[in-house]
Amino acid sequence: MAGSSFGRIFQVTTWGESHGKGLGAVIDGCPAGIPLCEEDIQRFLDRRKPGQSRFTTARREGDQAVILSGIFEGKTTGTPISILVENTDQRSHDYSAIKDIYRPGHADYTFDQKYGFRDYRGGGRSSGRETTGRVAAGAVAVKFLEELGVHVDAYTRSIGPIEIDAGRFDLSRRDENRLYMPDPEAAKEAEAFLESRMAEKDSTGGVVECVIRGLPAGIGEPVFEKLDACLAKAVMSIGAVKGFEIGDGFAVSRARGSENNDEFCLDSQGNIKKKTNHAGGILGGISDGSDITFRAAFKPTPSIATPQRTVTRDGEEREIVIKGRHDPIIVPRAVVVVEAMAALTAADLLLVSLSSRIDNIKAFMKRS
Amino acid sequence: MAGSSFGRIFQVTTWGESHGKGLGAVIDGCPAGIPLCEEDIQRFLDRRKPGQSRFTTARREGDQAVILSGIFEGKTTGTPISILVENTDQRSHDYSAIKDIYRPGHADYTFDQKYGFRDYRGGGRSSGRETTGRVAAGAVAVKFLEELGVHVDAYTRSIGPIEIDAGRFDLSRRDENRLYMPDPEAAKEAEAFLESRMAEKDSTGGVVECVIRGLPAGIGEPVFEKLDACLAKAVMSIGAVKGFEIGDGFAVSRARGSENNDEFCLDSQGNIKKKTNHAGGILGGISDGSDITFRAAFKPTPSIATPQRTVTRDGEEREIVIKGRHDPIIVPRAVVVVEAMAALTAADLLLVSLSSRIDNIKAFMKRS
Amino acid sequence: MAGSSFGRIFQVTTWGESHGKGLGAVIDGCPAGIPLCEEDIQRFLDRRKPGQSRFTTARREGDQAVILSGIFEGKTTGTPISILVENTDQRSHDYSAIKDIYRPGHADYTFDQKYGFRDYRGGGRSSGRETTGRVAAGAVAVKFLEELGVHVDAYTRSIGPIEIDAGRFDLSRRDENRLYMPDPEAAKEAEAFLESRMAEKDSTGGVVECVIRGLPAGIGEPVFEKLDACLAKAVMSIGAVKGFEIGDGFAVSRARGSENNDEFCLDSQGNIKKKTNHAGGILGGISDGSDITFRAAFKPTPSIATPQRTVTRDGEEREIVIKGRHDPIIVPRAVVVVEAMAALTAADLLLVSLSSRIDNIKAFMKRS
Amino acid sequence: MAGSSFGRIFQVTTWGESHGKGLGAVIDGCPAGIPLCEEDIQRFLDRRKPGQSRFTTARREGDQAVILSGIFEGKTTGTPISILVENTDQRSHDYSAIKDIYRPGHADYTFDQKYGFRDYRGGGRSSGRETTGRVAAGAVAVKFLEELGVHVDAYTRSIGPIEIDAGRFDLSRRDENRLYMPDPEAAKEAEAFLESRMAEKDSTGGVVECVIRGLPAGIGEPVFEKLDACLAKAVMSIGAVKGFEIGDGFAVSRARGSENNDEFCLDSQGNIKKKTNHAGGILGGISDGSDITFRAAFKPTPSIATPQRTVTRDGEEREIVIKGRHDPIIVPRAVVVVEAMAALTAADLLLVSLSSRIDNIKAFMKRS
Repeated sequence: MAGSSFGRIFQVTTWGESHGKGLGAVIDGCPAGIPLCEEDIQRFLDRRKPGQSRFTTARREGDQAVILSGIFEGKTTGTPISILVENTDQRSHDYSAIKDIYRPGHADYTFDQKYGFRDYRGGGRSSGRETTGRVAAGAVAVKFLEELGVHVDAYTRSIGPIEIDAGRFDLSRRDENRLYMPDPEAAKEAEAFLESRMAEKDSTGGVVECVIRGLPAGIGEPVFEKLDACLAKAVMSIGAVKGFEIGDGFAVSRARGSENNDEFCLDSQGNIKKKTNHAGGILGGISDGSDITFRAAFKPTPSIATPQRTVTRDGEEREIVIKGRHDPIIVPRAVVVVEAMAALTAADLLLVSLSSRIDNIKAFMKRS
Repeated sequence: MAGSSFGRIFQVTTWGESHGKGLGAVIDGCPAGIPLCEEDIQRFLDRRKPGQSRFTTARREGDQAVILSGIFEGKTTGTPISILVENTDQRSHDYSAIKDIYRPGHADYTFDQKYGFRDYRGGGRSSGRETTGRVAAGAVAVKFLEELGVHVDAYTRSIGPIEIDAGRFDLSRRDENRLYMPDPEAAKEAEAFLESRMAEKDSTGGVVECVIRGLPAGIGEPVFEKLDACLAKAVMSIGAVKGFEIGDGFAVSRARGSENNDEFCLDSQGNIKKKTNHAGGILGGISDGSDITFRAAFKPTPSIATPQRTVTRDGEEREIVIKGRHDPIIVPRAVVVVEAMAALTAADLLLVSLSSRIDNIKAFMKRS
Repeated sequence: MAGSSFGRIFQVTTWGESHGKGLGAVIDGCPAGIPLCEEDIQRFLDRRKPGQSRFTTARREGDQAVILSGIFEGKTTGTPISILVENTDQRSHDYSAIKDIYRPGHADYTFDQKYGFRDYRGGGRSSGRETTGRVAAGAVAVKFLEELGVHVDAYTRSIGPIEIDAGRFDLSRRDENRLYMPDPEAAKEAEAFLESRMAEKDSTGGVVECVIRGLPAGIGEPVFEKLDACLAKAVMSIGAVKGFEIGDGFAVSRARGSENNDEFCLDSQGNIKKKTNHAGGILGGISDGSDITFRAAFKPTPSIATPQRTVTRDGEEREIVIKGRHDPIIVPRAVVVVEAMAALTAADLLLVSLSSRIDNIKAFMKRS
Repeated sequence: MAGSSFGRIFQVTTWGESHGKGLGAVIDGCPAGIPLCEEDIQRFLDRRKPGQSRFTTARREGDQAVILSGIFEGKTTGTPISILVENTDQRSHDYSAIKDIYRPGHADYTFDQKYGFRDYRGGGRSSGRETTGRVAAGAVAVKFLEELGVHVDAYTRSIGPIEIDAGRFDLSRRDENRLYMPDPEAAKEAEAFLESRMAEKDSTGGVVECVIRGLPAGIGEPVFEKLDACLAKAVMSIGAVKGFEIGDGFAVSRARGSENNDEFCLDSQGNIKKKTNHAGGILGGISDGSDITFRAAFKPTPSIATPQRTVTRDGEEREIVIKGRHDPIIVPRAVVVVEAMAALTAADLLLVSLSSRIDNIKAFMKRS
């Protein structure tokens, strides 16, 4: 595991770099009997695709998912699901401008240090295009979770200083704008803000929020494999994420215990629930049955048209001006990546939890 | 791996609950030839120990570390290092007050949901006492890293609204106060703040910051096993942590690319370095040779003397008043836990990185 | 994972060397709700203990198991079970005779090559005493499997040329002789054979056979994690094992397909079964519901009283005569170790199999 | 890890079934800087290909390897290497004869029990065609090992009762006959033997032997991850293997310690070596620097033209006659699969061993 695999039972391995023959994912450990077709995956890839708006690059990637294995008569068989997305745009480009120079905010320098050289074409494996495999695999995890009544929804919470308004929040309207903001007014303001950043040849960061609904209580392991710890790793492993918080997040550092504790009560059917959800749905690393909510902070796109100082591979100081058209913000296309990583995490930990109790295992033995 | 193991090469497995016979850690994969004695571990455990000040519980735990295996003639042998910390305070307590009731902010309810029942004595495995094994193992990781010139230092950055001042920051003075704040003036203010919270029978949260110095460039894997993602999981797996950020963290969501990018330059010896460190020492998931800096947000101690509403295991609503003396803040004793988790992560990823390049492996073959 | 952990869900980590303070095992991932006490473990350790007969060393090890964690009110809690076996015989011995010399058939030389030095006291971690932790953990796995109606039984199949007779085979009589041969007549012959080897200051090898009954069909994964592959690794990881075979084993290399294939038929209740069991209960790496049978070949005890040629650490040729009393055969005490490893493997793969089908997972969701 | 991944650092994940769109492997953790091209992989696939002789099926599979990622300018980059082998023969066949019936000696029944249904086209994932991914990945491991001077060679040792003669053994002549026997006379006898089995509409088993040369001492971990244990798992995970032995293997069970122990001596340069190699190159689970030798027993091809009794999925007894042309023996095409699995195991454990000693790690730090 040099780090291209994720999960212990529901496990994905991704591969591919921005300018090779393609990218893909192999999902091993997906239970048998789940309906799955290429269209299920395509819907997710389309949300990640460039060229959706004037704030995303125009490169026509196509990104057509092909399922190569693991499906029989429309259902998963329990064997590995291999998904291939060919790179259609393989024209030879001129990379001489970045071949021997370290772009600020990119992984050029660290790849060279780690491996001794790098595939400099479009960032190679450190390109945002690497997330294609994650999204394809996440689509499978979502399909599995939906069979169980578990739903994962991510959306843009803020773009630079423009944040969605809790009062106007409407998840059903998320896809109405290409910024994936579930608040049309905030989306309009954010578009104006992005225009101004682009005019300044600059970029901005933002925040993605995600909610997992329907996960039963009891998912997650109590020490190192806490559900929130696993979500943190999953989300922080997305390039450009610099912060992660669950529930009230960093605000807890200034809160009082008496405010921050969620009191338990009974609902009208007599079931145990919490009056509030400062904890974000997790207690002691284990889901408590309420909504799981978390946020991820994305840094501004590092590729900007403004001249920057840097050094070459050979140790000379230089100015670099990054050419080509680049998104002024990463967030909108990253929304589906966050959703994918959350789904992969929830699917995996749910399967790990099947073995917590002897009574569940006895029930399994009876059926088999 | 039900979740009590951490790391792939340098791997720790912890065990134990608050009121059993003891707690411990088994460290497997520690390289052979590192000087290690019980005192090295004791120094770390003593920083986690209760009873250090009037803000920590008086329980006399002792927490004496015994090394049971893996050391020969004062050096690690490459085989598992088993460390035992006996629970000296095993008097039978009266737990009838919390046996059948769910404390707000604790994992009582989720453990019951996951396992069908729980060890209710002092929180069992979800107790803060679980971190004893982490700290013991972290001490070994620190010893290993120090042999390589890598240093890990955590400290209290804020307690409630009281934050250390960058101008007054002095790491060498961290241990002068029992809040582990490297700013004596802030520490004094924080003490007064804690007194007021205690007088109100309430608690507060805070922030721990950590710096890793001396890690060479090239550590961390580019996709799912990014160094920052692994640190996030390590730190979020500490009970009570609700947020994690690296470098500028959440602030990047409002930053401009032109500000947030760290330009490369040459130092006086002609080595490549960065002019700034907004990234927190990691680019594309791989260390860049500069300091690695991150922060963790801790929630307020959930055990408070104020009456709270909750429900019983049998589904009755009740009031609960938590007795006994509890720390009004988790942060000071958690500083060393953060340091331990950071050291374990850095040690493990450093060892994983040994195999990145064929030239390194050829050098190994020549020596062996 | 430097190799002291075994299993993915039901996972054991062992530690300890022959002359340290003790040995032990941490079992993580054992389901909650299984009755377990120290006596359950002691029964297994006693079968491994030296001094049971005149063919085993007289060292009084005691080998008392203490459970340090993971049990509450007589049941497993789902958290790690730490088991400690203290070394009571820690008198300082004189190891100068073997300190700098490589005993033939032992791991002295390879440890030195791997780690640069070694704990030479009694073989350190390469001692047969290392299996103490395996047996303790195996006892827990057996307890878990028995709750599910799965039984694991190993026994001595042959000692040197003396093999049990299929016609006389009676598992219920296995424990009547200290060679653990389920055929009293063969046991008597074997005892005489061992006496002659001892008189010649020599040792002998033998074969252990093991049967797993009651495992349902469907356990094991189809490619790399085949049930037979996992059993092979488990058993080959016991020091001194040089061969492993399942079902008809090496004999298949000379068999015909028409003989070796097990035809399917219906039993009197109309259930599918196999007429024969050449396959040893596994088809395509997955259990088929019939008995799982395998064998392991053990080499002769390498410690013999006969003088042998060897070299010192410093590269001088020498004669070595190994002092002290050593078992003339490893097999009898290894029977319970094979049983332990088989139980650990079956327990782990059974838990992995819980996630194979979506209908099982839907049933779990309904219960939780 | 539902079981389609192998290895911890040098890790392969395979996917694909016999009648899907293709098969493949993703190799993660291969060090950067190793020359690799498609031809390197093709050479290995060609040795596994059907249609090489009249003893192998005529199906024209083609089996062209395409590298989709992980290579830049002819060298591995350290990122995942994805290899695709398309299934060119995807005509729709008539599988009605085997759709609802359980072939003796095949995994039809166990797949149905595990997953609830199965991809019955040509055996799906339990087909011998699954080994395509292993061979492709093994070719990469071989390339890596050869860079380090480590060589892996497997060959047919016996076919039914016909065994190669130690006196005539000549590895350089292995590829002269399509049975891959390094003894032309034995090969001729074996061909005649196979003709007779085919005439009888029957099949036979055989034994593959493998030698790893050039592996330095110190590779393998001392407890559960012993080099021999890992090789056993690797090789037993190949469908149809029923036995594994290292060095003298099962013969040790009848040997004396005085014969079986390999005495150490000095070679002409004063280096430590062993006079004999009964151990097969491994002591205490760790390589000792001499050749590593092991054998695997393969069962007879289960698909035979002779009528057999069996049952249907619906529980009716039936006769089955398997149509089509099937190899009368698995062994010749399996030789390269054994080689691949041995190479993958050696490559992985070699990389794990990089972290055994602090002095090696200090040397790494100096270089980086």
